Amino acid sequence: MQYPEPIAKLIESYMKLPGIGNKSATRMAFYTLDMDEKDVNDFAKALVSAKKDLHYCSVCGNITESDPCMICADKGRDQSKIIVVEQPRDVMSLEKMREYRGLYHVLHGVLSPLEGKGPDDLNIASLLRRLQTNEAVEEVILATNATPEGEATATYLSRLIKPAGIKMTRLAHGLAVGSDIEYADEMTLLKAIEGRTEL
Amino acid sequence: MQYPEPIAKLIESYMKLPGIGNKSATRMAFYTLDMDEKDVNDFAKALVSAKKDLHYCSVCGNITESDPCMICADKGRDQSKIIVVEQPRDVMSLEKMREYRGLYHVLHGVLSPLEGKGPDDLNIASLLRRLQTNEAVEEVILATNATPEGEATATYLSRLIKPAGIKMTRLAHGLAVGSDIEYADEMTLLKAIEGRTEL
Repeated sequence: MQYPEPIAKLIESYMKLPGIGNKSATRMAFYTLDMDEKDVNDFAKALVSAKKDLHYCSVCGNITESDPCMICADKGRDQSKIIVVEQPRDVMSLEKMREYRGLYHVLHGVLSPLEGKGPDDLNIASLLRRLQTNEAVEEVILATNATPEGEATATYLSRLIKPAGIKMTRLAHGLAVGSDIEYADEMTLLKAIEGRTEL
Repeated sequence: MQYPEPIAKLIESYMKLPGIGNKSATRMAFYTLDMDEKDVNDFAKALVSAKKDLHYCSVCGNITESDPCMICADKGRDQSKIIVVEQPRDVMSLEKMREYRGLYHVLHGVLSPLEGKGPDDLNIASLLRRLQTNEAVEEVILATNATPEGEATATYLSRLIKPAGIKMTRLAHGLAVGSDIEYADEMTLLKAIEGRTEL
């Protein structure tokens, strides 16, 4: 006996989510049957709306309902700094600190020869255009992840943009606040020593 | 800065799923934005359809599109045996072995004083009605899970039904096929020794 078709289809959909295999998808599907009808309908609406109402900002590549996005449209923000990140969710994380008031640029990925991702697959051309047309930009802060691909992408962008006379910086690497030296990996400790600051 | 509303709502919906916290929900929501529009729309439709088109069979309590379900409606199945399970997905698991040709009854839970679940909260009344009106039933096989609550529910049902002269059996406990004795827990080994069979 097969699952009734409506539930088989739902399991199939859940399995398309990242990190969800057959067992989790089945559990979620049966759980859905026991959910409030309102919650399920809201869920379905949220899915359609997220896909339909959200776009990428034509300036910075961040996700947004309006275009340009709220950050790009806010003339009160510091137009001289752009933080370059991999994903829209990185923008959200950085905004959470409520300290930085400059702009952002979202690459939508990193250079990854293994996955066949080259410079043309990232949101790099629009970054260069932005730097050319906007004379106010003085500093580009590279905030790609501290992974080999993130580092390679930062190095690539730095070599590409630095000749134009724009200051290029990279987020500091070191010990996370609140972390134990005992559990830090070698590379993090090495970076923490290399980047030590004078008291 | 907050997440744009469409994505905030989607994160909220994902968080209602079992085992999904804030971080996983956020990851899924952003992943959804990168999915094919068709897949997202199919997902939304599957959610609504699973909730709308599936019901519980009025005879056995299994989930079904038609009522009675395919198993209850199939007169070719052995009407003398009923396997009692906790959840609809248990029926699917048992049907996968393609060996049992009898009927099922789904309790939709187990007796659990801690969660305030008593006999009236389970699909027990309809099981008793079924046994009273259907003279063909000769054996009720209790296939609740091998947990304390599952065992207690099996014992309860056995005491309730046995006086009516119906044979009550319980699934065998023992070592799973392919498992190592080295890694089996004490209770499983105890049950395996108690239930040993002669060669």
